[in-house]
Amino acid sequence: MSSNGASTYVALSGGIGGAKLSLGLSHLLGEKLTVINNTGDDFEHLGLAISPDVDTTLYTLADLVNPETGWGRRDETWNFMESTAALGGPTWFNLGDKDLATHVERTRRLHAGETLTAITAHLARAFGISARVLPMADTPVRTVVDSDAGTLAFQEYFVRDRCQPVVQHIRYDGADAARVTPQIVSALSRPDLAGIVICPSNPWLSIDPILAVPGMREALRASGAPIVAVTPIIGGRALKGPTAKIMAELGLSPDIRTIAEHYVGILDGLVIDKTDEAAAPALPLATTVTNTVMHTLADRIDLAKFCLAFCAKLASQRGVKLQAGAR
Amino acid sequence: MSSNGASTYVALSGGIGGAKLSLGLSHLLGEKLTVINNTGDDFEHLGLAISPDVDTTLYTLADLVNPETGWGRRDETWNFMESTAALGGPTWFNLGDKDLATHVERTRRLHAGETLTAITAHLARAFGISARVLPMADTPVRTVVDSDAGTLAFQEYFVRDRCQPVVQHIRYDGADAARVTPQIVSALSRPDLAGIVICPSNPWLSIDPILAVPGMREALRASGAPIVAVTPIIGGRALKGPTAKIMAELGLSPDIRTIAEHYVGILDGLVIDKTDEAAAPALPLATTVTNTVMHTLADRIDLAKFCLAFCAKLASQRGVKLQAGAR
Repeated sequence: MSSNGASTYVALSGGIGGAKLSLGLSHLLGEKLTVINNTGDDFEHLGLAISPDVDTTLYTLADLVNPETGWGRRDETWNFMESTAALGGPTWFNLGDKDLATHVERTRRLHAGETLTAITAHLARAFGISARVLPMADTPVRTVVDSDAGTLAFQEYFVRDRCQPVVQHIRYDGADAARVTPQIVSALSRPDLAGIVICPSNPWLSIDPILAVPGMREALRASGAPIVAVTPIIGGRALKGPTAKIMAELGLSPDIRTIAEHYVGILDGLVIDKTDEAAAPALPLATTVTNTVMHTLADRIDLAKFCLAFCAKLASQRGVKLQAGAR
Repeated sequence: MSSNGASTYVALSGGIGGAKLSLGLSHLLGEKLTVINNTGDDFEHLGLAISPDVDTTLYTLADLVNPETGWGRRDETWNFMESTAALGGPTWFNLGDKDLATHVERTRRLHAGETLTAITAHLARAFGISARVLPMADTPVRTVVDSDAGTLAFQEYFVRDRCQPVVQHIRYDGADAARVTPQIVSALSRPDLAGIVICPSNPWLSIDPILAVPGMREALRASGAPIVAVTPIIGGRALKGPTAKIMAELGLSPDIRTIAEHYVGILDGLVIDKTDEAAAPALPLATTVTNTVMHTLADRIDLAKFCLAFCAKLASQRGVKLQAGAR
């Protein structure tokens, strides 16, 4: 629990990359960490309610994740999928036999009237996770990609079509009708909240859906806690996933400046990679530089520590400013 | 295909015992066999549409059935079930990883608007089955057991409570609104139909639900084909399942006479076991005696041959009667 004492933190996260940093944070913070997860990737498949980013977070924090892929469960078997293929069923979305239990149990509880928040809390408890894991909303928000191949539901674009269509526009259907949940408001209004960390997830596909929930930006700001992000772009490339490709398709230069400009107005500070150190002085917000590539658990914990220290530094600077203003 | 040439046959069947005889019949008849399956056992579980008797028939005819249990798939894995248990989900109904694919695919297709008949035909094709397998109806009929433990859905009684409650009454909810399907009417109205075999399934739990579908008894009779049944009771006991226990609880003597009396009006003849040979002369319908216990595939085929020969004998006797009446 380190030097952060009784302070709590909130992380905003998408899937694999975000879950890696969340794991580092959870090693430092345990129950003092709340992860707010993107649910724009959620979809209904084979009659099942699937929440890919929530599950990646749960499996990662529970040390159940497949270390080869970063998603799904370790020591997984695929008999359901192979049998489904033999019956002519759809197999473009991989569902392992163990993973399937999560989706079936989630679906069963949703049909019984439980909220996604309550179900996620139940799953986290069952998996022995000490951090709190919260979906960004309890009503469906669905990321939709307008592309040169037509309008695609997110998982059609991301998994089925392997991000090959050229993205023209990204929407978050249902966001207008969503609301920040009481559990998110509660986590963001704690007096001991010491920082908010936006994980190195895709800003357009993973973080913007969270920020699109009405009341979310206001709740983040009203928390009074420093908000920092870890860049998902290093040297003009994404470590994983289609972030750089999508940025180019949206007419954006896939570099650290674009990331900084995208987050202006929400962030107090941006953690950039050593590779991009030279660009730091010209960026439109406070930055700090470190190694942001997480190969090992130690890397995840180191980056998490760095983020917490950055929050503390920003808070103390703000304190100085406030003091200066008061004189 | 033996001596039956181009003749077709229809079997009425429940689960394990019925599937054994259906397998014997399918070895003799191939595509000339139509199995009408009980769907009174069907239920919704974990959001899935499960048809236990249909699946037992499919798996048995496809040689995919678990030979140890008589239900479910061979070489099955249980990772879904174990993971569900870890999440606190219901585990009283066993769902193997491979078996699960059948239920998910059936549910998916039902939601897409396909009939249970069409879905079952698809599954039979996918499993490489040459016989036709038909559910008894396309609308839900649900066997309900009134017992000393209250009113129980069939699988609650049968699987969850292991047939321990004392049966007071058995109902087939939804039967009144069901209809004999066009595929059943078609199979029963073929001019080459040479016989109808009621498998050694539980008359009250497996066969009566089929006969409760409005139009079923009429269609069976109108077929003009001899109708024979194989007794599910041997020497006052059932080989498998709760038949004898239920008969006693319903105030019926669990013996071959009760079976014969139950089927009077629907049957032309009853196949009884050697064990009950002495009771034959006093029974209220035509009987024939053989070994009805099916341990091996050869036993299944032998009993199937015996049933077909009995149908042929009854048909020729009927022909003689008709000729006699015409003089």
